[in-house]
Amino acid sequence: MKIALFGAGRIGKVHAIAIANNARASLACVVDPHEPSAKALADQYNVPVMSESQALEDGNIDAVLIGSPTDQHARQITDVAESGKAIFCEKPIDLDISRVRAVLNQLDRRPVPFMLGFNRRFDPNFVLLKQQIDSGVIGNVEMVTILSRDPGLPPIDYVKTSGGIFKDMMIHDFDMARFLVGEEFIDVQAMGAVHIDANVAKAGDYDTAIATLRTASGKLVSISNSRRATYGYDQRIEVHGSNGMLQADNVRESTVVLSNGDGVRLEKPMHFFLERYEKAYANEIDAFVRLVIDKDESAPNASDVLRALELAELAVHALA
Amino acid sequence: MKIALFGAGRIGKVHAIAIANNARASLACVVDPHEPSAKALADQYNVPVMSESQALEDGNIDAVLIGSPTDQHARQITDVAESGKAIFCEKPIDLDISRVRAVLNQLDRRPVPFMLGFNRRFDPNFVLLKQQIDSGVIGNVEMVTILSRDPGLPPIDYVKTSGGIFKDMMIHDFDMARFLVGEEFIDVQAMGAVHIDANVAKAGDYDTAIATLRTASGKLVSISNSRRATYGYDQRIEVHGSNGMLQADNVRESTVVLSNGDGVRLEKPMHFFLERYEKAYANEIDAFVRLVIDKDESAPNASDVLRALELAELAVHALA
Amino acid sequence: MKIALFGAGRIGKVHAIAIANNARASLACVVDPHEPSAKALADQYNVPVMSESQALEDGNIDAVLIGSPTDQHARQITDVAESGKAIFCEKPIDLDISRVRAVLNQLDRRPVPFMLGFNRRFDPNFVLLKQQIDSGVIGNVEMVTILSRDPGLPPIDYVKTSGGIFKDMMIHDFDMARFLVGEEFIDVQAMGAVHIDANVAKAGDYDTAIATLRTASGKLVSISNSRRATYGYDQRIEVHGSNGMLQADNVRESTVVLSNGDGVRLEKPMHFFLERYEKAYANEIDAFVRLVIDKDESAPNASDVLRALELAELAVHALA
Amino acid sequence: MKIALFGAGRIGKVHAIAIANNARASLACVVDPHEPSAKALADQYNVPVMSESQALEDGNIDAVLIGSPTDQHARQITDVAESGKAIFCEKPIDLDISRVRAVLNQLDRRPVPFMLGFNRRFDPNFVLLKQQIDSGVIGNVEMVTILSRDPGLPPIDYVKTSGGIFKDMMIHDFDMARFLVGEEFIDVQAMGAVHIDANVAKAGDYDTAIATLRTASGKLVSISNSRRATYGYDQRIEVHGSNGMLQADNVRESTVVLSNGDGVRLEKPMHFFLERYEKAYANEIDAFVRLVIDKDESAPNASDVLRALELAELAVHALA
Repeated sequence: MKIALFGAGRIGKVHAIAIANNARASLACVVDPHEPSAKALADQYNVPVMSESQALEDGNIDAVLIGSPTDQHARQITDVAESGKAIFCEKPIDLDISRVRAVLNQLDRRPVPFMLGFNRRFDPNFVLLKQQIDSGVIGNVEMVTILSRDPGLPPIDYVKTSGGIFKDMMIHDFDMARFLVGEEFIDVQAMGAVHIDANVAKAGDYDTAIATLRTASGKLVSISNSRRATYGYDQRIEVHGSNGMLQADNVRESTVVLSNGDGVRLEKPMHFFLERYEKAYANEIDAFVRLVIDKDESAPNASDVLRALELAELAVHALA
Repeated sequence: MKIALFGAGRIGKVHAIAIANNARASLACVVDPHEPSAKALADQYNVPVMSESQALEDGNIDAVLIGSPTDQHARQITDVAESGKAIFCEKPIDLDISRVRAVLNQLDRRPVPFMLGFNRRFDPNFVLLKQQIDSGVIGNVEMVTILSRDPGLPPIDYVKTSGGIFKDMMIHDFDMARFLVGEEFIDVQAMGAVHIDANVAKAGDYDTAIATLRTASGKLVSISNSRRATYGYDQRIEVHGSNGMLQADNVRESTVVLSNGDGVRLEKPMHFFLERYEKAYANEIDAFVRLVIDKDESAPNASDVLRALELAELAVHALA
Repeated sequence: MKIALFGAGRIGKVHAIAIANNARASLACVVDPHEPSAKALADQYNVPVMSESQALEDGNIDAVLIGSPTDQHARQITDVAESGKAIFCEKPIDLDISRVRAVLNQLDRRPVPFMLGFNRRFDPNFVLLKQQIDSGVIGNVEMVTILSRDPGLPPIDYVKTSGGIFKDMMIHDFDMARFLVGEEFIDVQAMGAVHIDANVAKAGDYDTAIATLRTASGKLVSISNSRRATYGYDQRIEVHGSNGMLQADNVRESTVVLSNGDGVRLEKPMHFFLERYEKAYANEIDAFVRLVIDKDESAPNASDVLRALELAELAVHALA
Repeated sequence: MKIALFGAGRIGKVHAIAIANNARASLACVVDPHEPSAKALADQYNVPVMSESQALEDGNIDAVLIGSPTDQHARQITDVAESGKAIFCEKPIDLDISRVRAVLNQLDRRPVPFMLGFNRRFDPNFVLLKQQIDSGVIGNVEMVTILSRDPGLPPIDYVKTSGGIFKDMMIHDFDMARFLVGEEFIDVQAMGAVHIDANVAKAGDYDTAIATLRTASGKLVSISNSRRATYGYDQRIEVHGSNGMLQADNVRESTVVLSNGDGVRLEKPMHFFLERYEKAYANEIDAFVRLVIDKDESAPNASDVLRALELAELAVHALA
């Protein structure tokens, strides 16, 4: 299965590694308007640089991985779908929910295998967490707590165009909540605050937020977010069921422990998503391969993005 | 400092031990309408059984510890205050907030040293947590997560007269939130569900609940409660500040770890409050001694009960 | 059961608390040649100060707890045995193995209930460890690792009269090895070093040591000792069996965890034996009560001391 | 830097992955007398199958990785050295110490870059442990404890030709001891037992062993080995210094924790060396690249193998 890579930036490189290491996939070409980036990445894997149209017209290419800037996603999805190739798109499709709906409608009319890059669903720890839930080992799920903290506030210019903390950051947690609970949410509460940088407030956003969700059957989910964690990337989940609790803890940088007069010091959690989710990115490409070759439709699809985005909008309204 | 003990039930026995082991306090008498209970406890510590009035009239007695059923608290506080003796009262003062206000007003008119038995403030782990917050080690507090789960649902008859999960159970967490954050809350959200027993719903209550609080400065608190935890008493707190995170984890029954083909098994958290808060009860009596002898007013007072109860009422209204 | 306490020093006070809190025992008197110490402790528990002979002649006293300096133990055991009272003796009986044998022989001729204060056997964690071994959960025991480190080197004058690291410190671990393995050892290897203070070498002793033991059936035990651990009292045991591993970890001062840019900091292990073994001392008195009243002979006896001392001597010879 | 791979078995495949993923190295060919294995691995990476002599004569090939069966190592090292190419050899060079000395002498006469595959030196946890020791954070090293347990006994035929537990298994720990302590050992004690399979004893070997080492300056090392650990691959190190302790704990299969009525269950340590040391193998190839290209000689060399083998022989003699 030959994959064209759209986007040679940071996330594009991560996907290039995952494609190269996948036994059933190979990189076909790199597409990026910034030519030096495209060329450097293409050279590393001995593949050509192509333009979008060249890649879409190339009959040997089976699929496109869209890792370009967010504002290109909706258009590229439409174009690739027209070409009949399979699509893996980094999240989000678009920050505007009506635009997402339009893209989704078009995919309905021109269906191709389509998968969204909700990387956390593929983290080995969260995968095992989900398997254990499904095995019934903790009985019926009653409450889920999702904690997600980035190591530091992104540049304020990023914040301004990000769509806000709920659509940009907590959307991962909304998706995780749906993934783990397996039911839709009918009730959303939210609170927010600005603690890190007053410019976030000027941009009409929050850097710290809590949301609470409820399904029709009464399953409760608590999500907390902060744009800053001085101790590294904090990504923890706790699932309470009628028969026990499952937790997925952070992954530490190493297992080394120092004990001295100051206490007992463990290593910090891994720094950020590139380190923490390294294996998730590899598993994600594997899921894309299974979707295209094996017709295994368990990967997150356009509908999953739409639902997560709807929850983000509900949280924004609840808070306003 | 001689203390009369009102109430020879389960919690009365716990306080009797703490008083007997305290270097600056001694048990003076036991008061309980159920004579066999009163006599057994009094005999164990070689003190007399007395009636309420005998105790209140005894000039050698400095203080009264009220560990009787909740419906006696308000009246007993009033009576003891009249006698001029110091008061330690198990929480709550009363489930009816107007009744609490009346008792509080009366204490204003007839002031005696008064302390409420919010035992968790005296848990050595939470005490250290508070000290570390106050030391500034994590900078400004931005978010607090309090998780509190009882090992099992109490009898449904208890549930019916408990005042509901927010006033009976989460009130401890509301007090802890105020204790740790050091600011009052201006915003309260809540969600609830019934997962354990449909009779809880029939009684108009919830067995599972989440509340979110916000102070004027934007500090956020998330509290989650369940009446059931199959793995023992779950009492954890997490405090996020501008400079780091502090956590107080559960106390396990032992440090023994079993590793075999099934995994690595740690011991469960201690079963319930009598085990987990054993040292808290001793520290609590010590705080009472410091209040009465040293005029150290750091112990939780009637106003603290009132504020916690107000938060519980706000949560009930938010949910309804 | 009324107990006379011989010795009002640090360990005597610990035992006084345990006796006072025990439901089936009570303190009868305090005996100590240093009168102010004896009086202070006696006053605290409203019991008289007595001389040795007064206590031994008092028909109301059932037992004697010997918590005096080591050089008094052998004589006091002999005298108390003559009086027919039960004996709890702090370890060791004597540093001279021939003297221990003589005392043991005399106890054979004049038998009274006799128990040695090997406190670690009564630590709740090690008790559970032993119970789990006996339950068969890890199958046959194959290897045991015992790690024991004191927080700091004792005064060099103590070291000089201590009998050496093997008889003074590792003897606890030899006893623990026998307790856990349930077989006698036929082979002993040892290595030692001086790392903390050159005066230890001048005194003919070591401050750091490793011993390896083997039973006839091939069970192996590794013991490591150091007179210094900057991070607190280190007391860990690991038992490997045919079907798994059991570990008893240190007990931390609290469960509070601080995460920041420097890492994740847990609290240190408890400082030293008085803190770590607080519950062990209470359980130890309970075992003495069961020995005297219930004839439950599971407590460590004179023979246990003899065996542990023999292992210490073998280690000394192995090293020399 | 182009590398010929000798050996297409299990360990050869691991090295092929590491070479392919290394930015400065590439696989040049695969050499294995078992043609189907050689062809399958060569095809996967689009490289040719060659004979030993073809590879050694190929001027484009810079280095050879010897991952063939142990009995080929000595001869292949000699042959590759003759060709002037750099050598990475899987441990051991040979089980016969005189043969190892002969190979070492020949490498002295015909020097080429040479590195031994002591994989544990490259485990990220142990690397950090070593860095922390060297940083002085725990002061002077005084005692090291190395625990190493394989998940299960290898086939008895492997045991018979393995050279025995000290040369086959504990040799890794002897190397680690030298790596961490940075001094040579002058004293070796050992004990062994057979607990898993009586056929091990019939083969003149042990399946369970403890060794104790001492340097001239008094640094002590305790090593324990078992051929079986029902809970996974147990690989732990503890380093005690004058100022604190460093520990490197096992790496668990995931961070998922299950809490229920049976206790709190963590995941097991990773199953065996292929999983646990996955990153070590990648780092190892990187060290080989640095040795050849950058002349960085920090990698383990022939002398390191010789010293480790000498310690294994001393342990065997100590036990006999």
